[in-house]
Amino acid sequence: MKLDRLGTTALSAALVAGALGTAATAQDREFTIAVSIPAATHGWTGGVVYHAEQAEAQIEAAFPNVDVIVSTASSATAQVSALEDLSATNELDALVILPFTSEELTAPVETVAANGTFITVVDRGLSDDSIQDLYVAGDNIAVGANTAEWLVEQLGGEGQIVVLRGIPTVIDDERIQGFTEVIEQSDIEILDIQYANWNQDEAFTLMQDYLGKYPNIDAVWANDDDMLLGVLEAVDMAGRTDVQYALGGNGMKQVIEMVMAGDERTPISTPYPPSMIASAMYMTAAQFAGQAPMRGSFLLDAPLITPDNADQFYFPDSPF
Amino acid sequence: MKLDRLGTTALSAALVAGALGTAATAQDREFTIAVSIPAATHGWTGGVVYHAEQAEAQIEAAFPNVDVIVSTASSATAQVSALEDLSATNELDALVILPFTSEELTAPVETVAANGTFITVVDRGLSDDSIQDLYVAGDNIAVGANTAEWLVEQLGGEGQIVVLRGIPTVIDDERIQGFTEVIEQSDIEILDIQYANWNQDEAFTLMQDYLGKYPNIDAVWANDDDMLLGVLEAVDMAGRTDVQYALGGNGMKQVIEMVMAGDERTPISTPYPPSMIASAMYMTAAQFAGQAPMRGSFLLDAPLITPDNADQFYFPDSPF
Repeated sequence: MKLDRLGTTALSAALVAGALGTAATAQDREFTIAVSIPAATHGWTGGVVYHAEQAEAQIEAAFPNVDVIVSTASSATAQVSALEDLSATNELDALVILPFTSEELTAPVETVAANGTFITVVDRGLSDDSIQDLYVAGDNIAVGANTAEWLVEQLGGEGQIVVLRGIPTVIDDERIQGFTEVIEQSDIEILDIQYANWNQDEAFTLMQDYLGKYPNIDAVWANDDDMLLGVLEAVDMAGRTDVQYALGGNGMKQVIEMVMAGDERTPISTPYPPSMIASAMYMTAAQFAGQAPMRGSFLLDAPLITPDNADQFYFPDSPF
Repeated sequence: MKLDRLGTTALSAALVAGALGTAATAQDREFTIAVSIPAATHGWTGGVVYHAEQAEAQIEAAFPNVDVIVSTASSATAQVSALEDLSATNELDALVILPFTSEELTAPVETVAANGTFITVVDRGLSDDSIQDLYVAGDNIAVGANTAEWLVEQLGGEGQIVVLRGIPTVIDDERIQGFTEVIEQSDIEILDIQYANWNQDEAFTLMQDYLGKYPNIDAVWANDDDMLLGVLEAVDMAGRTDVQYALGGNGMKQVIEMVMAGDERTPISTPYPPSMIASAMYMTAAQFAGQAPMRGSFLLDAPLITPDNADQFYFPDSPF
């Protein structure tokens, strides 16, 4: 640590003050970063709220000149109101937003940007991507493709599988596209592919359907770990031992625990981590606290989660 | 700041220790991040060294559990040796590397990765991109395209220009491609386009050549701010007032000072900032200090640097 290099900038002064134990209050902080996210309405967004609050505490401790404000909203309309409140009561240097919907949030975010606020968009893009300074998103094509590559290898390039789709969205389309493009290069047959809306109960019902229709199913891809839980319940209830692999995606805590435990039927997952909100918050903080250039696009990889690396994706205190 | 959320992890303990003023020594630090970069052999790499050292001090102050080691090398061979030394004397959690050359560094970096070290590659890719966990680079096509769009607008879509190329590399090819694709959509004529190897003296000589050959030149694009300085000298020496715009790229300090001063001939630049090493270091630190997922690709935008935003790209203490 070269403290002699510090001392010339406001940042340095703040860091030194922090190191000397001076408590920084919101009033002392030079930069304000607002974080607007959906409330914890289901598993994945529950994870987003958890990680945003963790990152808020960590970033404020690390950078005494940065104040982070996390705001949750339970609908697109509520998020629009929250943005108005945040802008009215604070001078925002940056806004990190995971928009409820692209359509309803684009104009309100544009209004915030017009004040000179740095805009970081996470996961779901706005309708006009020229508004954002930084875009952080997962790679849904890789979620599907990496899972498919693993499955092709395990099944020796042949067999019969069924697939469950989520809610009809670009995210679902991309996952299915990445998966099917790889499967089509093999001799694996997709027996059936239907929507279950990323819903555990609907996935349970759909899987019961599949099990009734097909006497042999070598593997199931549920495209999402919430749906995987419903699939596993249906398979177990039917006592079907032909199902060698049942895979999901997203890196849900319960599923990572299976991976860590060396589960034979569910030995992998792929991350589409709600902690990407923390990636976006850290990058935005570095733009201000460190003057590190952060305008651009960050696309997260979707490496397979295996017993070897599962601890990196495991947050025992997170709801997801 | 919600300190009640902390206290369960090593990170939190370290943060609390930091806030209480306990000085952390390298021995206390949980994570070691090595940064391997070219020595300050010319302007841009001088900037890389400056920003790496600044970010080292800032990151160590922000994250008491992270130790950063910056190592410079004056050749590809020296960088390979430096990697061996770094690996032999430290257990590296991460390596941030701006490789001298792709060919010579790929195998040595692969060896480091095989130990489980997280690999962040900056700017110049390795020959095998499956080795890296995180890739951080500028967008050279955007450097050319954004400059061309501005120029087309200023010239009203017509006129005669000359272009200087750098060293024959992918970087130069991409800048020229981005630029010419936009110019071809207009009625602007590129009178001449020759290499001057990103060298100020060669650019001076080439520009003298252009000025002798062409009685009217509305604008010059030098593709790089080092070359721009040579161009400006040649134009001034010839007293040529037909040259309305002389533009470079990279965001060199002297050129940003022109932009800030409202220079009429050089009112903009585009960033290809050496501070991208700091972006890569902050992102890598967040992977460890914050458990924020940082595997993926970050492509920096190349927004125009104008008088309105020039301060964000200006580092008065940097050599570049």
